[in-house]
Amino acid sequence: MYILSSARLRTPIKEQLVDTFPEMEFYFANLMDEGKNYIHQADILITYGEDLTDELIEKAEKLKWIMVISAGLEKMPFEAIKKKNILVTNARGIHAVPMAEYTIYMLLQTAKQAKTLIRNEQDKVWNRQVGMTEISGKTIGILGAGAIGTEIARLAKAFSMKTIGYNRSGEKGSYFDEIYSSPNELPELFASCDFIINVLPKTPETFRLIGKELFITMNKDAIFMNIGRGSTVVEEDLIQALENKTFAHAILDVFEQEPLPENNPLWEMDNVTVTPHISSITPQYQERAIALFEDNLKQYAKGSTKLTNIIPLERGY
Amino acid sequence: MYILSSARLRTPIKEQLVDTFPEMEFYFANLMDEGKNYIHQADILITYGEDLTDELIEKAEKLKWIMVISAGLEKMPFEAIKKKNILVTNARGIHAVPMAEYTIYMLLQTAKQAKTLIRNEQDKVWNRQVGMTEISGKTIGILGAGAIGTEIARLAKAFSMKTIGYNRSGEKGSYFDEIYSSPNELPELFASCDFIINVLPKTPETFRLIGKELFITMNKDAIFMNIGRGSTVVEEDLIQALENKTFAHAILDVFEQEPLPENNPLWEMDNVTVTPHISSITPQYQERAIALFEDNLKQYAKGSTKLTNIIPLERGY
Repeated sequence: MYILSSARLRTPIKEQLVDTFPEMEFYFANLMDEGKNYIHQADILITYGEDLTDELIEKAEKLKWIMVISAGLEKMPFEAIKKKNILVTNARGIHAVPMAEYTIYMLLQTAKQAKTLIRNEQDKVWNRQVGMTEISGKTIGILGAGAIGTEIARLAKAFSMKTIGYNRSGEKGSYFDEIYSSPNELPELFASCDFIINVLPKTPETFRLIGKELFITMNKDAIFMNIGRGSTVVEEDLIQALENKTFAHAILDVFEQEPLPENNPLWEMDNVTVTPHISSITPQYQERAIALFEDNLKQYAKGSTKLTNIIPLERGY
Repeated sequence: MYILSSARLRTPIKEQLVDTFPEMEFYFANLMDEGKNYIHQADILITYGEDLTDELIEKAEKLKWIMVISAGLEKMPFEAIKKKNILVTNARGIHAVPMAEYTIYMLLQTAKQAKTLIRNEQDKVWNRQVGMTEISGKTIGILGAGAIGTEIARLAKAFSMKTIGYNRSGEKGSYFDEIYSSPNELPELFASCDFIINVLPKTPETFRLIGKELFITMNKDAIFMNIGRGSTVVEEDLIQALENKTFAHAILDVFEQEPLPENNPLWEMDNVTVTPHISSITPQYQERAIALFEDNLKQYAKGSTKLTNIIPLERGY
């Protein structure tokens, strides 16, 4: 089997792949610029999922399986892939650890008044009255109760929080005290939580799902966090709610437009924390993605197509 | 029974005490300035433990039990108390939740490069390459494996860390993978951890226990945190180790001298985070301390002296 990678993998990871699968032929291309010259002979393609086109899929005569080593699939040419019935898997789940760490970190940063503490440190000010609170015992609502949402809920339970999830299936995993599954229930969910964490993916159903009707139901002291996709939130409604101090603080890692334009008011608002789409960044990323690929490749080599994280082509996520 | 409080308790808490124990007589004094006029008739005293003197104990003819609603007992006149064989209990354990939250928060703040992220936000800089790491899977050493250390270990296990504790009893609680009990083992402990958390109390045995012999064994990437007592660390050795970049970062909430003097170099070092002795601060403090007192008072009213957190008078902590 000929395995082409258009993803820039680190050297030890390439070596490990070659060592683990001596019967396979690997070619590690310098991105798709070089990879496109080899795609016609590839049986399997490893990609970050942002470098494929209808034309390349057309050229990929022998391609049977695309392993996307990320979770976002918005740039995949699914129509062309469907025509050729190519198997697609992704790295869903490997973002769970860093994104759950980011979530707990940001809730603590806000509760502990970190920005004030750091400013006081810079000014050598010894002030013990900064209004620190606890996250323990609070209620957290998690929109998107998949692998990432479940890992957030697991850590939240360790902090003795009440956990409420939202997903369309209504399936309640081990770490959720309650699960909501209808968009009609969202106002109730927003009203009953101290923290709302949005991890929803970008789909036609989630597009601009979170707007002023939901923000107005939130508690004055509540915190809204978006680490899913910027397009799931009506950004002008969010800005309005923050200007009105409808709720206490927004922690935003994703935006309608990224990088966030310099003239966007979110940058300068006191009750907003902006980070540059980093919640899933971790030095362990490639190890985990390739570990998942290796498990799948062992199955595939045995002739099985019962792989982990197969993407239904008609759904596309 | 006459119960005097020299601690400034919040009104709802006073009301709750009076409601719960209608058969008791309570007097809530405005600190010991006023309380000293009533101490001769008190059977029980509620205090923060910093306002007692030999003279006051002498005056307290009927006093049988002192409830200290804090954990530090350094300012208690134990010789005088011992002579009158007065029972002393404290609020040990109620610091566990906020101090464990502080610990996880600070580990995450350092791992996620929070100071850089916050500076970039102020400057409206969208930079995704700030060198964030994870705390999951790391090894944490906790000096002082009592109530606070155990709560830190419990959260650390939730983050899939390996936990190593240090206490003199050698008793290994549920959340420690290993426990060390001899000071001779400390170099090995320091050498094998990514994070060292010092929660040791101030005792003759812990005085300046942590110095250069231990710092030099630490890993280049390791983090040292002190939330116990400043006097347990040789501060000049710590500053030297940080100047030499012997390890990566120190997170310091307690110091030899507090408030930390403005000319102390720790304020300005890049690889140091200074906070003003706040790790145990929480809005839930009095509720938890008084809940503990109420449980004890119920026992005491029944004639039992099997109370929680009795302090051995000869040890004094």
